[in-house]
Parts: sequence; C-alpha cells; structure tokens
Amino acid sequence: MNIGIIGLGLMGASFAKRLSPQKDKTIYGIDQNKQTIQTALELNIIKEGSTDPGKLIKKCNLIILALYPTMIKPWIVENQQYLESGTILMDISGVKTNIVEPVQAILRKDLELISIHPMCGRESRGINFAQADIFDNANYIIVPTNKNTPTAIEAAKQLGKDLRVKNISILSCEEHDRMIGFLSQLTHVIAVSLMNTHDNSHLVEYTGDSFRDLTRIATINEDLWSELFLLNKDILLDEIDQFLDATKHFRDSLEKEDIDEMKRLFIQSTNRRKLFNK
Amino acid sequence: MNIGIIGLGLMGASFAKRLSPQKDKTIYGIDQNKQTIQTALELNIIKEGSTDPGKLIKKCNLIILALYPTMIKPWIVENQQYLESGTILMDISGVKTNIVEPVQAILRKDLELISIHPMCGRESRGINFAQADIFDNANYIIVPTNKNTPTAIEAAKQLGKDLRVKNISILSCEEHDRMIGFLSQLTHVIAVSLMNTHDNSHLVEYTGDSFRDLTRIATINEDLWSELFLLNKDILLDEIDQFLDATKHFRDSLEKEDIDEMKRLFIQSTNRRKLFNK
Repeated sequence: MNIGIIGLGLMGASFAKRLSPQKDKTIYGIDQNKQTIQTALELNIIKEGSTDPGKLIKKCNLIILALYPTMIKPWIVENQQYLESGTILMDISGVKTNIVEPVQAILRKDLELISIHPMCGRESRGINFAQADIFDNANYIIVPTNKNTPTAIEAAKQLGKDLRVKNISILSCEEHDRMIGFLSQLTHVIAVSLMNTHDNSHLVEYTGDSFRDLTRIATINEDLWSELFLLNKDILLDEIDQFLDATKHFRDSLEKEDIDEMKRLFIQSTNRRKLFNK
Repeated sequence: MNIGIIGLGLMGASFAKRLSPQKDKTIYGIDQNKQTIQTALELNIIKEGSTDPGKLIKKCNLIILALYPTMIKPWIVENQQYLESGTILMDISGVKTNIVEPVQAILRKDLELISIHPMCGRESRGINFAQADIFDNANYIIVPTNKNTPTAIEAAKQLGKDLRVKNISILSCEEHDRMIGFLSQLTHVIAVSLMNTHDNSHLVEYTGDSFRDLTRIATINEDLWSELFLLNKDILLDEIDQFLDATKHFRDSLEKEDIDEMKRLFIQSTNRRKLFNK
C-alpha cells in the first residue's frame, strides 16, 4: 500500500510517524517547504518526498490530505490530474459540511474522497512536534456522504485501526459539525475569551490547576482556527448564543440572589458532568 | 500547641490529617455530627472530639474555623465566651471582605481573628474525602486587616509552613476577593454554564480531554458555592459581565467574518496564556 501524505505539518507528520513502521505500507510526503521534506527524510518517516505533487502522487493508492481546510479544494483542482484511477483520498479537516461536499462535487468520477476526523492535536504546529502516539487516545470519526462506497468506508475504518485510535465511529457531516461546534469550537471560544476578559498577568502566582485546565486551549493556532470557525460559522454562532444565554441566566440569578435557582443550576451541571467522567 | 478544628468536613479533616502527626501539636475536633467525630477518632487524627464546643475549645490556643462561611459569625457569637484570652482564630473561607470584617467587629478584644485561605479543595465533600496532601500544591494566602497584629500574621505564616503548602503570600481582603472572583468563581460560572448550555449526554462518546478539563469544576457543592458567590456578589457580577463582553466581541467578529480581529484575539489569548505555563 502506497500512501501519499499531503502536508507534513503536525498532523501529517504524525500520520507518517505512526504508519511508516508498518511493513505493508510505503509513505510518500508532499509539502511546500523543502526543509520539512528534508526533516521527514532524516526522521525516516517517508520513503520519498517532494514539493511537487505530480512526481509522487501517481504512485499512491491512498492520499491523506493533511492540509489547512481551505487549501483542500484548490489542491484537488490542481493535482487530481496526476492520480491513478481508483485512488482513495481522505481529508482530516476539523469541519466537514463546507469541505466534503464541495470537493466531492468537483472530484473526477474515478476517484473517491472519504472524510475522516481523528480528534487529536497539539497546541504547537509543525513537523517538529509530530508524535506517533497522538492517536492513542483519539476518537476517530468517519464522515461518509451519499457519494461514498462501502469499499471506501471500509478503507477509512482500516486506517483507523492502523493508526491504533481509541474509538472509531460514524457520523453525518451535519452531526459531526454540530458535535464539533459544541465540544471543541465553543470550548475554544470560551477559553480564548476568558484569557481576553482583562489583563491578568498579576494573577499568575495565585493560579491553580482549575484555571490552567480551563485555559490550556487558549493557546491556539490563529490561522487554522479562524478558518475552522468561519467554515462552521452558523452552527458555532448558535452554540455561542446558547452558552451566552445560559451564562446570563446564571448571572441574573446571582443578581437577584435567587439561591434556589443557583443551586438548581449547580446540581444540574454536577449531574450532567458525571456522565463525562472517564 | 493545642489546635481546635471547628468543622471536620473535607477541609477541616484534611487539616487534622496533616497536622496531627506533628509532635508539638495536639488536635481537638468539633463537629455537629457525632458520626464524623467517631470517624476522626478512629482515623486517629484528633485527640478528643465533641459536638459541644464549650467542653474542648477552652484548651486550645489556636482555633481553625473550617465552617461554611455564613456559619462563622453565628459560631463566634455563641462560643467565644468559652475561649481563653489570647487565643488566635483563623477562618479559611473562600471569600473575605464580607466575612472577616464583620467577625472582627464583634470579637472579644482579647481574641484575634487572622484570615487565611489555603487554595485547595476537592469536588467531593466530607471527612471521608479528606487528604493530608491536599495542601502540597496549594497557594496559601494570608489576608490581614488593620486589626491584626504581627504576632498573629506570624502564626498564620507558621501554620502555612506546618501545612507544607507550596507558596505563602499576603493580600488585602479586596485584592483577595478580586483575585478569587476571576480565577476561581468566574471559572466555575463558566464551567457550570457550559454544562447547562443544552442537553449534551449524546456527546459523551466523542469527548476529549479539552472538554473534560474545561468542565471538571462543573461538579460543584451547591450549598458552599452559592454562599461563596453571594458573599462576593458585586465583584463576581463585574467579572461575569467583563467575560460576557469579551465573548460577545468574539461572537460579533465571527458573525462579521472579521478574520483579522479573530486572529488578533487568538494571538492575544495565546500570549497571555503562556505566562500561566508551569
């Protein structure tokens, strides 16, 4: 099996690190940056690499698109001409509706894009932070559309197993984007907004684990996340508005000194949170 | 040194666990609940215990008030008659302005209350969850007023050393309550409100560490925290309002697709959060 990884950033290089030791696989790497290719070759996580997709991707029967989301469609437009008939492509982008359907609409009929989302990452970017074990505790979501075949869905499942992810599941684009809007995007908006509430540098020495845990994800790749947010704008705005309503309701209960309502809200959050204990 | 711990809940019993093995100290425990006294005796973390303060507290030269905040003043009114002249009292409540000054105002002139706040705790309550090592990573804040003597401040410092806390510092009541309003109370409001945003039980299987980290403190003792919030109401309302403004500003930047402003906010939060890395 020849796998082409397009983009050797944090995620693409982590794929290469995890998959390259597996005997039935040969990994090829494409990146815009020559130094990144050089690093991947030195790490021995790709067999060959190039800044020019045309030379290498025709050898591959699986392409993993580890690009920034908005770069996926332009990449397909430019490079699908080089792919062999029957090649399966998988994107790993963090939002789906506005990525998968537009790409499937322009894809050659003898190619197939099946979308996956391994839910893992790091606050840092680039090949130097890549780690094979990033997948160990990850939820891995396959996001098929009505254009996908059982063969491609099976290939996506097999890749999840090869990555040794914790859990594999299947969601529609809309279910995926709604879930991500709440669990991931809204939480990042909250952490970022908390850090931006006011200057807080004088409070560092008093900070405990609760505040650190809550704000860890306020360290964020601004280029990637502004793209992801815009691509999921309607859902995310709705989630933010629901959160603002819940916070305002708590605020008003405090202002009115409605202690019964405050306690009801605490008990509800405590009960809901218990479900999320590991 | 004879130390009377008033209230053998999670915090009071943790004090007893940490201090009772120290040879220069004898620990006495007071609690409303006979079973709790019995448990403390079986754990060998108090020498004697009683539900009746009058019998024991006259033996003590240090009293640690590990009571719910609103119970402190009534306890003083009822029981200060039993204390020997020169006894030092320390409350450990999580807010200060509305506790310390009212108590100091009614305290016998031959007694002294010096306020401390060991910043540690657990989501669970009661003696059965008490642990000596709860103090190991704690910030310990001494909160003196103009009524306090150098002797009492020194005793509070010594207690912090005896508890083997990580860090001892001194703040005014107002500085303390402002710091707690942001770092602790606002973060709890956020975690609780996020859990209360909408039903989310169907999302449990997709949840990663970020969401778990952010919502851990949504498991909350509703009796204690509703008291703490009401006692710091004005400051907390101001902090919530500033956070709501920051979140709304982010929301509006997303709605307008103002990508430059979103990136600026991400970069600001990233830079601020870096200061909080351990």
